[in-house]
Amino acid sequence: MEPMTFVLFGATGDLAKRKIYPALFNLFLDRKLPSSFSLIGLGRREWSDESFRANVEQSIREFSRRQSNDPSLMKQFVEAFRYHVLDIGRQEDYLDLKHLIEQCEEELHLPQNRLFYLSVGPEHFQPIAMNIQQSGLGSVNGWKRLVIEKPFGHDLQSARALNEKLSQAFTENEIFRIDHYLGKPMVQKLEALQQNNLVIQGIWNNRYIANVQITANETVGVEERAGYYDHVGALRDMFQNHMLQLLMMTAIQLPRESGFDEVRVKKKRVMKALEPLQKQNVTASVIRGQYTAGSMKGQPVAGYVDEPGIMAGTMNDTFIAAKLQIDDYYWRGVPFYIRTGKRLKEKSTRIVIEFKEQFISSPSEKHGRIEPNLLVIEMSPNESITLQLNSKDLSGEGEVKPVHIDIHPAGEELPEAYENLIRDALAGDSTFFAHWDEVELAWAWAQPILEAFEENLVPLRLYEAGTYGPPESDELLSQDGYHWWFDAKEQQTTEGEEKQYAYHKNINTVASLPTKSF
Amino acid sequence: MEPMTFVLFGATGDLAKRKIYPALFNLFLDRKLPSSFSLIGLGRREWSDESFRANVEQSIREFSRRQSNDPSLMKQFVEAFRYHVLDIGRQEDYLDLKHLIEQCEEELHLPQNRLFYLSVGPEHFQPIAMNIQQSGLGSVNGWKRLVIEKPFGHDLQSARALNEKLSQAFTENEIFRIDHYLGKPMVQKLEALQQNNLVIQGIWNNRYIANVQITANETVGVEERAGYYDHVGALRDMFQNHMLQLLMMTAIQLPRESGFDEVRVKKKRVMKALEPLQKQNVTASVIRGQYTAGSMKGQPVAGYVDEPGIMAGTMNDTFIAAKLQIDDYYWRGVPFYIRTGKRLKEKSTRIVIEFKEQFISSPSEKHGRIEPNLLVIEMSPNESITLQLNSKDLSGEGEVKPVHIDIHPAGEELPEAYENLIRDALAGDSTFFAHWDEVELAWAWAQPILEAFEENLVPLRLYEAGTYGPPESDELLSQDGYHWWFDAKEQQTTEGEEKQYAYHKNINTVASLPTKSF
Repeated sequence: MEPMTFVLFGATGDLAKRKIYPALFNLFLDRKLPSSFSLIGLGRREWSDESFRANVEQSIREFSRRQSNDPSLMKQFVEAFRYHVLDIGRQEDYLDLKHLIEQCEEELHLPQNRLFYLSVGPEHFQPIAMNIQQSGLGSVNGWKRLVIEKPFGHDLQSARALNEKLSQAFTENEIFRIDHYLGKPMVQKLEALQQNNLVIQGIWNNRYIANVQITANETVGVEERAGYYDHVGALRDMFQNHMLQLLMMTAIQLPRESGFDEVRVKKKRVMKALEPLQKQNVTASVIRGQYTAGSMKGQPVAGYVDEPGIMAGTMNDTFIAAKLQIDDYYWRGVPFYIRTGKRLKEKSTRIVIEFKEQFISSPSEKHGRIEPNLLVIEMSPNESITLQLNSKDLSGEGEVKPVHIDIHPAGEELPEAYENLIRDALAGDSTFFAHWDEVELAWAWAQPILEAFEENLVPLRLYEAGTYGPPESDELLSQDGYHWWFDAKEQQTTEGEEKQYAYHKNINTVASLPTKSF
Repeated sequence: MEPMTFVLFGATGDLAKRKIYPALFNLFLDRKLPSSFSLIGLGRREWSDESFRANVEQSIREFSRRQSNDPSLMKQFVEAFRYHVLDIGRQEDYLDLKHLIEQCEEELHLPQNRLFYLSVGPEHFQPIAMNIQQSGLGSVNGWKRLVIEKPFGHDLQSARALNEKLSQAFTENEIFRIDHYLGKPMVQKLEALQQNNLVIQGIWNNRYIANVQITANETVGVEERAGYYDHVGALRDMFQNHMLQLLMMTAIQLPRESGFDEVRVKKKRVMKALEPLQKQNVTASVIRGQYTAGSMKGQPVAGYVDEPGIMAGTMNDTFIAAKLQIDDYYWRGVPFYIRTGKRLKEKSTRIVIEFKEQFISSPSEKHGRIEPNLLVIEMSPNESITLQLNSKDLSGEGEVKPVHIDIHPAGEELPEAYENLIRDALAGDSTFFAHWDEVELAWAWAQPILEAFEENLVPLRLYEAGTYGPPESDELLSQDGYHWWFDAKEQQTTEGEEKQYAYHKNINTVASLPTKSF
């Protein structure tokens, strides 16, 4: 990894404190930072280098997944940190910054490799990028990179406008768009599993897979983000970015050793094959929900419209469920069900790949249904990958029973998403970042939904806080003969439906089953 | 399970003591015996019921995998046991036996369901079967069954002659031929895995499988069986029966809920598709070995020819390795490598399914080879099924590394082979027994090898005791670009062979690796 300068806009902010400094510290502990490394924190507050370093230390004590017993290590770590006051809109400040950076580079014999990390609101992306360019900060002998985090626009048009501005200062290869779901260890493990195992590749298509279910359920409400969230909703906040990125990561077919270029091409191909929706037909495959008052863990909670900071008469979506189809050789006929929302019964983020039923031996078969094979990638609340297989219980009556195989067992100490992503950005590896093509195609795909919501063509389904969302979300699957896996509730089976599913299963219980039971 | 009488020939013998009584006792503990159950032990010794029961009790104390703390249980168990003196060759003794059985059946209100278990030498099979028929013992209102164990003949001709005689007294459906390898829990688990999991079925063919390796290595020499073994050799003792049965069990493609009829048909189909050898060409695909003096665990051991009871100048095979091809839709092009022998370095019985290498992304790929996926069914010394996958080490440098997934972890308390098989025989389920068609086809397939050995058309390869057999066994694989997995030794790579295999791996080490390392 090349020596470099990490220029952090928003150094006094919340994200920096909770995620960036702890991530850098853990990378430091693992010796995964460049040998020569300098960080310049920028903010409006009048901090000294010392008070900045004290703040960084404090954030690590509070938020780092690991601490160090050796105080000299912390000292060594924060020595690389300097602070500089900067007003984002003032051109002169960028010239001062340039001077400071050049001075540091000279002192530390650093090449002109500069990573600009914009841990600031999206309204600042464009002015910062412009000022970096105009001040000459971006005119380097080495490399420059821009790291930004969503939202990347508010709709297709604004996203394109933003990208056009950014691309005046940075090329696409220099822009690293963080989607922290792509940094999650289980997403990276899933991608490695697909890429490096013929036995997985062999079954990774519509001949074997019945459907894919991607869930990101939250228990929290809007919290302090009411003003923001009420203009955004679940569709923009979660679905257009994180959920579609998870869909792409599940659906891409990559040979091993694919570089980021190949990943980019393949993800784009998935997005292009995603069947587009027509504004008039959105309602057939998209459920728009909003929570009403209900109870969470026995405590009454307010409905969305009664949350502080929410506009009267809001039609904002706090829940989205959708059925998507990828019309390509691998996935034709395999529905991808996606849902995400707030104030739901359980916090859970997971991908469930449900395999098809057995080839039946004969129509007269009377021995009842066995459970399908499942591959379950759980990202939250635990991190694990398990495979549900059917085995013979030789200690019992020789029955065929489902057993749960740990491919990646829960409980291991793993790096956080930001560690993986910052490390990749430092190394210039954009594999697990959101590329412009994907962002644009995701907005383009979501645009008819945004418009249908805007024009109220899709009914707003109310759901009680503490449930799994509106019943229409379940119907989306049951009309195809499926159900959401691992919802801890009783579900209605479609009338005349003979299949008995293990409705009462809960993934957390499942994951903790001893494999010995096999 | 229907009430019945278990008529045991050879009740004072070694197999009964070591295997049959302990198996019955464990079935009894698990409530897997018929509700009404009577056992009549037969032997030449003049035992009383009491001394027989005492012997049964003693054998259970010595050989049973489980004991019971409750003495009344043992009492209840042995109450079902009676003893009767019988000279296998005396017709009158069978009439007495018939009288005794009828008396018991009346006393216990048992239907005429009789299972004749022949725990005696194969020379007695025919006279016993004949006497059962002629005495009227086999003329029952209920059902009758015959349980025998190998050897089923000495070659194709003698096997056919034996079967013809037996079939005068018992139909094929009444004959249960024990091959105790088919009762092994891991073989039964393997069969259930294939049968009940679409994700396994999807990769169970020549598109994904590179080769199959079936190993049954022993560390012991001929022990007390010299006189017998010297006329039999590894080919008849292990290969023609156990090893070919394991091959069939690996290769059959069964839909779930297949009954024993379907299993029989499918196994037969595998044997029929097995490419036949010509006597003149046996030497190209079969390695015949015999051990010379060497050392086992640091102790010198004698060569085969110097073992007591072995004929001077013997050319008997104590080791066989062979490459077999199944010419059908599923397996064309997938070599099955089989080896078995005595005085080898390690005791191990296992099936290794090696999957093909990754689809390569580009010919310029420079990142080195990754390990293939492996499915490892270990039957001895431990019992486990593991899958080798490739994963990404996120705690480290993000390298792709092989990890070992426990599908069936070692260490679980499982029934012994004889428990599974006796239970199935009691229930009349012949799924895991050797059917005549298979036995006949296996002899027919082995016949050219027998003849080639007889006529010395195949060189006898000497190997030092304590090794993995003659080097020609390794060459059988290396000429195809493969190697025996998990041999704990350094192997020579073929010249010009660029692939680096994990030669030093040992399956025992592998199985005990914490899955946490994933």
